[in-house]
Formats: sequence, C-alpha cells, structure tokens
Amino acid sequence: MNPFAQRPADSVSALGETRLIATIRRWLAGVSPPSPRGIGDDCAVLPANFRRQLITTDPVIYGRHFDDTVPPRAVGAKLLKRNLSDLAAMGARPTAAVISLALDPRVKTRWLEQFYRGLAAAARQFSVSIVGGDVAQSDGFLGAFLTLCGEAAGPRVVLRTGARAGDWIYVTGRLGGSRLGHHWRFIPRLAEGEWLARRGEVRAMMDLSDGLAKDLPALTPAGTEPAIDETAVPVSAAARTLARRTAQSPLFHAFCDGEDYELVFAVARRADRAAFERAWHQRFSPTRLSCIGRFVPAGKRPANTTNLATYHGYEHLC
Amino acid sequence: MNPFAQRPADSVSALGETRLIATIRRWLAGVSPPSPRGIGDDCAVLPANFRRQLITTDPVIYGRHFDDTVPPRAVGAKLLKRNLSDLAAMGARPTAAVISLALDPRVKTRWLEQFYRGLAAAARQFSVSIVGGDVAQSDGFLGAFLTLCGEAAGPRVVLRTGARAGDWIYVTGRLGGSRLGHHWRFIPRLAEGEWLARRGEVRAMMDLSDGLAKDLPALTPAGTEPAIDETAVPVSAAARTLARRTAQSPLFHAFCDGEDYELVFAVARRADRAAFERAWHQRFSPTRLSCIGRFVPAGKRPANTTNLATYHGYEHLC
Repeated sequence: MNPFAQRPADSVSALGETRLIATIRRWLAGVSPPSPRGIGDDCAVLPANFRRQLITTDPVIYGRHFDDTVPPRAVGAKLLKRNLSDLAAMGARPTAAVISLALDPRVKTRWLEQFYRGLAAAARQFSVSIVGGDVAQSDGFLGAFLTLCGEAAGPRVVLRTGARAGDWIYVTGRLGGSRLGHHWRFIPRLAEGEWLARRGEVRAMMDLSDGLAKDLPALTPAGTEPAIDETAVPVSAAARTLARRTAQSPLFHAFCDGEDYELVFAVARRADRAAFERAWHQRFSPTRLSCIGRFVPAGKRPANTTNLATYHGYEHLC
Repeated sequence: MNPFAQRPADSVSALGETRLIATIRRWLAGVSPPSPRGIGDDCAVLPANFRRQLITTDPVIYGRHFDDTVPPRAVGAKLLKRNLSDLAAMGARPTAAVISLALDPRVKTRWLEQFYRGLAAAARQFSVSIVGGDVAQSDGFLGAFLTLCGEAAGPRVVLRTGARAGDWIYVTGRLGGSRLGHHWRFIPRLAEGEWLARRGEVRAMMDLSDGLAKDLPALTPAGTEPAIDETAVPVSAAARTLARRTAQSPLFHAFCDGEDYELVFAVARRADRAAFERAWHQRFSPTRLSCIGRFVPAGKRPANTTNLATYHGYEHLC
C-alpha cells in the first residue's frame, strides 16, 4: 500500500494531533500499559530491574527500509523485529519500547492504523510493552524510530568480541534472500540467541544486518582472518532466484545483501562440535545451522577458502 | 548554518558510513563509554539499577525544530535538553541515551560535527552517557531521534495526575519567548524538578512543550477547570517583543507558543505557600516562580479569571 492519501480527508492531518495520539493508543491497546507505566506522562516509568539492562535503536524509513510492496502491518512488525534481532544477538529478551514517528501529514490514516496494528501484534508475540513515543510532523518524509530495552535472559550476555584464533564460524538459517521479502518476513532469533548464550562454547555473537562480508569483521579477532568454505555457506533459494535477475552469483547475495537477520557466532576451537550441533537440532530442528569456516591467523588462510574482503556488504551512505 | 553542502567533498557521503560512525564516536569521546557499555555492539549493556527507571523520546527535525539560524552545536544540545526536560518534569535524573539519525547524504560533515559536539557538551554538562545509536540514509530529510533513560532522583516520581480541586497552579521561569531563541537556549529544569519532587505539597507536574493552553488540561483534575489570573502570568520580554511583530498579545504567546520547557505544577490547596515560596527562592533565587491560578470546580470560575480553552496551543499536524 502506498502510504500517501490522495484526499485530505483520508490523511492523518484530518485527525489532528490530539485525536491521532488518542487513536494510536487505541491501536496499541493490549501492548501499551496504562500511564505512568505506559503512554501518557512526560516519561514512562519502568519497574526497577535487577538484571543487566540492554538498549538498542533502529528505524524503518519509507523508500529505504520499506516501499509500497510491503504491507503496512509488516512494516510495523519489521520495525520491532529489527530491534529484537539486536537483542537476540546478545542472548537477551525484550522488555519495553518507545517509538518516535516522523509523519508527513498526507499519510493515510488507514496506512498508519495497519502499521500500528502490525507493531502491536509483533509486540504481543514477543512480549514487548510499548510504553511511550512521540509524533512529529515531517513534510515529505515518513519514518519510525524505535528504541527497545531488554534484559539479560541468562547469566551472561554474548558480545561481538571474544572469538579467538581457531574458533569455528557458524550461522543460523539461510543467507541472501532479503531482497525478495525476507527483509520483512524474517522472525528474529530470540529463542536461538538465548539458547546460544547459555552454551559456554559460544564465545562471540552478532546478528547479520549489513551482510556477512561487512558484518563479520566485527566478530573477527585481531591478528586473524575468517577462512570461509564457500560450499558450506547456506545460500537461500531466494538468493538463487535473485541471482538469475541480477547477473550476480547467489553467493554474492549471501555475502553482500543486508537484512538477513540471522545470527553469526564463534564456537571455541576445542568444543565438541558434534554434541553442540546435536543439541541445536534437538531444540531447533527445522532451523539450519551451518559451520561456514573458522578464524585463522592472518595470512594463513587455506587456498580453498574465501577471503571475504573481496566482497563488500551493504553501505548505507552512497 | 545551512546543513547541506554545495560540494560533495564537504558532505557526509564523502566519508561513507563506516568512517562516519568511527568519526561520530570520536566526536562523542568522553560521553560515550567503551563497548559493551557504549557504542559498538548489537546493544549497549547498562548496569542493573535498583531504582525505578524512566524513559522518554523526542526528536529534532530540520525545518520543524530548528532551521539555518540555530547553530548546529545548539541543535545537538537542544535534542538532549528536550528529553531532559521530560525527566525534570517527573523529578528524575538522566542516565543514558541512544540517538538514531536520519541523514541526507548531502549534509555537511562540518555541520554534523558541530551537532555531535554540541550534543556531547550537553551530555557532559548533565551527566548523560550516549551509549548507542543508528545512522540511516534519508534523502531530503535531516532529523535526529533521541531516547533518554533516567532514574528516580528521590523517593518518588511526580506524575501529571494527582492534582485536586482547590490546588494552586505554579509555573517556573517566564513564558512565551520560545520563538525568539528560548526554544534552543533554554536550560532544562532538572535541579528544580528534583527539588520539587521532594516537596510533599507538589501533587502533580509536567513540562510545557506545546504551550500552557494545550498542556494544562493534562494536569487538570476531572470535574475542575483552571482559573488563571492573567496578571500573574510571567510573560517573557521576548513574548512582548514578538507581539509587536505578530499583532497578537504577549499573553497569547505566553499561552499558545510551544517550547517553553518550563515546569507547571500543582501545589496542595492547604499547603503553606509562603514557606514553600521562601524555600524555593533560597534554593533557586534568580529563577522566577509564579502562582498563576488554581483548579476550581467546573463552572465555578471567578469572573476575573481566564478560561484557557479560548486559547489553544501548538498543534503539530496541520
């Protein structure tokens, strides 16, 4: 659905700000606790929390993170899911979110309703409270900026740093399908991230948002380089379909397209990988788990492995 | 300063995303703790906190909250101060913030540097850590969306609800000067808000962001209306200057212009107001404190008082 109304009567400007905010609260009913724990005061008041707190922020912007082909409910869900993926990547679970909207006055009220209902449905599914927000006018621009709070789900959070030379590189799911719909259809790997954080052999973890080629350096220990076995990379069927159109290889899309929202993590070199993989498949049987390579001392990459530096991932500002 | 570069070499697109983010971290040095407590991982990890947590979000958008006349350092400071004012309004103090940037690639690197340095200076001044963020490309739009976390400074937070019939209405500072520069020069009333939250006679509080006429209904108890003594309203000198240009009254600007960022609060009807005001002036001597009226039973407003409903404050979507 295109977000912009032809007739002023169909637009959010016909509602006006005060009624719009009251309406948004109705759209969010069930996931928005009463004030002061939710929307309605200068700040939302959250209970004291004895666990370590986590915070992350990511937007969705019209023309960049979604277009007319993405259903508005899916846009609302994607906004939350992008942020949930960041919590998943540390083994955390969500608690509360605030959303700041930059809204062109010509946006269709119906588009916005579907957007918020999709956000609310995702918030219910993943047990997130929407506790506050802001609506600001922005002519010619439509974007929503969400900040998500969470807490450590277990005894530790998993950082991007911590991998060592010799550690194995694993990814969940399949890569490269984002541009054909995965970028909004994905399910954030919250359960998987929490499980992985409880496994001592997992030393470092992150989610794939800009493509493996651009993201993996953040996981790569100093003095090492990733040696990737191309035959082990789980290329999605969508990446193969896309490659027929783009004249790129499926592997190029798996390495370089953003928005996979899969987890990539390092498993200790001396870990019992067979036992680890067995435990994964018992818990997450339909979800693919792939060992795609390992971190080797810089300059010692075997000839039959790939240097990801020859690819590059999604660059935001060009 | 106009934010947009004439020459591509002067723009953030010449830096590219990866270098831009590294540069932003440098601009924020001193207020951005090392990862994982700050920028650099999927989420920022905050320590456990045994106080009640608060969270609020507000943006600054080019063409709406600032224009070429506002120095970029002041824009960065305003972004944080707007959010600090919301914490002040509940008697809380800040802890950490994340900032999500929607950035046209033509924005001048120099503009952005000044913006972040202004944000960093304000963060230092008010003891806020900038712990994370996001940069997204947005063609033809420049906006920054900040989410601020805080904690109760004392034994309670003060809500907007809690005033009763007969309570006195107070405001800090002077009203109506925002459009002549107060909207970015203001100092958020954090110390005042914390002090007021410790005073038992203060029953309800909020900050003035959309103008007294539009904001005060949120503080007004059901079954009452505010009876405002116009002669007691602290009209700023800037509102008088502005009124000479706009053909409105100074009082109109004091009631209707947004962005005063002063505190408005209710004092219990039976409080010792003289003692309260004396204590205020001992602590905050140069800062004006005005009792501008009281909440009276609906329909019982004295004839020499003003019905604010005849005015209306700043409406965001028009």
